[in-house]
Amino acid sequence: MRAYLGRRYRLSASHRLFCASLSEAENQKVYGKCANPYGHGHNYTVEVMVGGEIDGATGMVCDLTELDGLVEREVMEPFDHQNLNTLEGFRAAVPTTENLLLEIRRRLERALPRRLTLAVRVEETSNNFFEYWDEDSEMR
Amino acid sequence: MRAYLGRRYRLSASHRLFCASLSEAENQKVYGKCANPYGHGHNYTVEVMVGGEIDGATGMVCDLTELDGLVEREVMEPFDHQNLNTLEGFRAAVPTTENLLLEIRRRLERALPRRLTLAVRVEETSNNFFEYWDEDSEMR
Amino acid sequence: MRAYLGRRYRLSASHRLFCASLSEAENQKVYGKCANPYGHGHNYTVEVMVGGEIDGATGMVCDLTELDGLVEREVMEPFDHQNLNTLEGFRAAVPTTENLLLEIRRRLERALPRRLTLAVRVEETSNNFFEYWDEDSEMR
Amino acid sequence: MRAYLGRRYRLSASHRLFCASLSEAENQKVYGKCANPYGHGHNYTVEVMVGGEIDGATGMVCDLTELDGLVEREVMEPFDHQNLNTLEGFRAAVPTTENLLLEIRRRLERALPRRLTLAVRVEETSNNFFEYWDEDSEMR
Amino acid sequence: MRAYLGRRYRLSASHRLFCASLSEAENQKVYGKCANPYGHGHNYTVEVMVGGEIDGATGMVCDLTELDGLVEREVMEPFDHQNLNTLEGFRAAVPTTENLLLEIRRRLERALPRRLTLAVRVEETSNNFFEYWDEDSEMR
Amino acid sequence: MRAYLGRRYRLSASHRLFCASLSEAENQKVYGKCANPYGHGHNYTVEVMVGGEIDGATGMVCDLTELDGLVEREVMEPFDHQNLNTLEGFRAAVPTTENLLLEIRRRLERALPRRLTLAVRVEETSNNFFEYWDEDSEMR
Repeated sequence: MRAYLGRRYRLSASHRLFCASLSEAENQKVYGKCANPYGHGHNYTVEVMVGGEIDGATGMVCDLTELDGLVEREVMEPFDHQNLNTLEGFRAAVPTTENLLLEIRRRLERALPRRLTLAVRVEETSNNFFEYWDEDSEMR
Repeated sequence: MRAYLGRRYRLSASHRLFCASLSEAENQKVYGKCANPYGHGHNYTVEVMVGGEIDGATGMVCDLTELDGLVEREVMEPFDHQNLNTLEGFRAAVPTTENLLLEIRRRLERALPRRLTLAVRVEETSNNFFEYWDEDSEMR
Repeated sequence: MRAYLGRRYRLSASHRLFCASLSEAENQKVYGKCANPYGHGHNYTVEVMVGGEIDGATGMVCDLTELDGLVEREVMEPFDHQNLNTLEGFRAAVPTTENLLLEIRRRLERALPRRLTLAVRVEETSNNFFEYWDEDSEMR
Repeated sequence: MRAYLGRRYRLSASHRLFCASLSEAENQKVYGKCANPYGHGHNYTVEVMVGGEIDGATGMVCDLTELDGLVEREVMEPFDHQNLNTLEGFRAAVPTTENLLLEIRRRLERALPRRLTLAVRVEETSNNFFEYWDEDSEMR
Repeated sequence: MRAYLGRRYRLSASHRLFCASLSEAENQKVYGKCANPYGHGHNYTVEVMVGGEIDGATGMVCDLTELDGLVEREVMEPFDHQNLNTLEGFRAAVPTTENLLLEIRRRLERALPRRLTLAVRVEETSNNFFEYWDEDSEMR
Repeated sequence: MRAYLGRRYRLSASHRLFCASLSEAENQKVYGKCANPYGHGHNYTVEVMVGGEIDGATGMVCDLTELDGLVEREVMEPFDHQNLNTLEGFRAAVPTTENLLLEIRRRLERALPRRLTLAVRVEETSNNFFEYWDEDSEMR
């Protein structure tokens, strides 16, 4: 039997939305006050959902200590209490929450055991959230 | 890369659940206290989720100002602070949250740019919610 | 030892804010879209907080079954799934949440055993709430 | 037109995670403090989502009184305010939330009318949740 | 200038409400299903609020690392993932949330630096909470 | 009759906690990762509570449009989507949430009509909040 386990992690970071290939006026139009020169920040909620067989002996989809360690290393350490614009992963990409989501997913997918499928959701505020899943995955 | 952006909007409205083709007793059985003669109301949360390609330059799925304007015009103006039973869209349909959801979806689908897919969720109370998505859509 | 027990109850009701002694324009100015002619509604959260001695044997401030019964009779039955404007208690008073709070408090205070003190809080939406407590009470 | 109705139910239960076929040390490694000898507990939120055609007359996916009655009988009565380890359903299975989810789903699926599809989600804490859906179902 | 800092901690525990000096029938009447023989459990939220002068240099009411360490030692270690009925502090007192609140407060008050005032709130479920503060305190 | 109206506003800002009169090591000890050189950010919730007489005609404590305008001017415009460290109000004070709270309160108190009393609460994350009220006020 397969089931899906979701787990929420919280991180605080700052960013400024600004695209160097657009003019000042275009940046203002696209990002509004998110383009303010000195940046602002958010409490992001990262929801990691993994799918897999329930182990017949332990009754669990995966080892939580391992999952937490993996998220600590791949998500919390690089992004928590950071200014996203200063990070390696956002050298070429504007640190929108869409791009933060892709970056988090890329890191988790690389680190997660093959037997587990993955979906990631990032909430930027209580009114805004972003999701991603594989097109050929059974996970939505 | 495709991603999905969800955004929550809140509106307050009143309704009375009553079906003219059913007897008084049947209405009472089907709708319970929701059939009380003078109506009651809810704070509805409307969750609009759009899917699309992340723009390589801006790092965004869609322009938020445009999405907010579209929802303001198609959802907030017609439904917020209204008595649903008095509205055009509920002349032939009981204003259950299922029918409100369909009505909201119909309006958003008509107004949304073709390149974006759509899912809608309406919460009626903190314990009750309703969802809809296309059967052939990759969105759930 | 005294302690304070708070308990949340949820009710859905509709209202229209309109004051007969004000002109149409003044109503519009004071109440905005809350003065829309056919009304609208909310999911109200009523938080009832009672203070008293912790019973040495049972370890409880009060009997929850009794408190729930009292709130059912004094708050849920008269107000849940109703149009506030049609009720006796709002014949002379506009059914703002301030006045709903006072009405709920009046009823609970009359019904509550003397040994318990009372504070009431009503949330109208997730962004709006109202509180009342006695000026000479130790409860805030 | 099909739509999906979700409804939340809350229950409080206790459990101890311990697998008899594993050594004491292995139990400690797999379950951590969840293996503490006298157990602990949670407020579980059970989210039941049913999909079906919206009835043309009533405007509803299903009769809520019937759904609530069914959940009361199949979920609340057997599991609410219980110690999961003492129950029939967990004689052979460790009462992890994964297994509680499967048990709840098995019971609801057996009792639900054929015309409705089902998805179940159980939240164990505000940071942990579990989902299940049929592989060949259109519901996710 | 004085201000008040509140901080939320979450713990999971089980309990059975049963008073040895009452008859079986009285226990049933007072505690209802909370008296079920094998117990049940909750996710408790413990809100610790401390008041004090804002330090002119650091801009803080107190050192958060110290506060967290103190709560870890006085609240999380003794109560998290435990069966309250088996603990020293509830040998003579029924482990109602009122008594858990008093026990937590007693421990924190003993451990907190003299210059800080204290209020404690414990939520048992999303609908039930308990508070305590000193009668002569300026904190409510 | 007096009552109290609370209203929640949300703003996003970034800050770095660093006190120039302390050494690098002391900053690290006091603020931990909040002292990271490029800053981080939060979604702050500002809860403004005003107390006053309920107007006999309108049934309201105060004009909401006026209150919202006042908060927009005194709180949202100066602080939303800003880097707090770059603002005038934090030239001499570290932008801790304690100091942000005092700054918000100072501005609101100056702008609020004399007949209304004031309490302010700022939530920094879902686990951290700060409150302030006058020592001689009846509001807590």
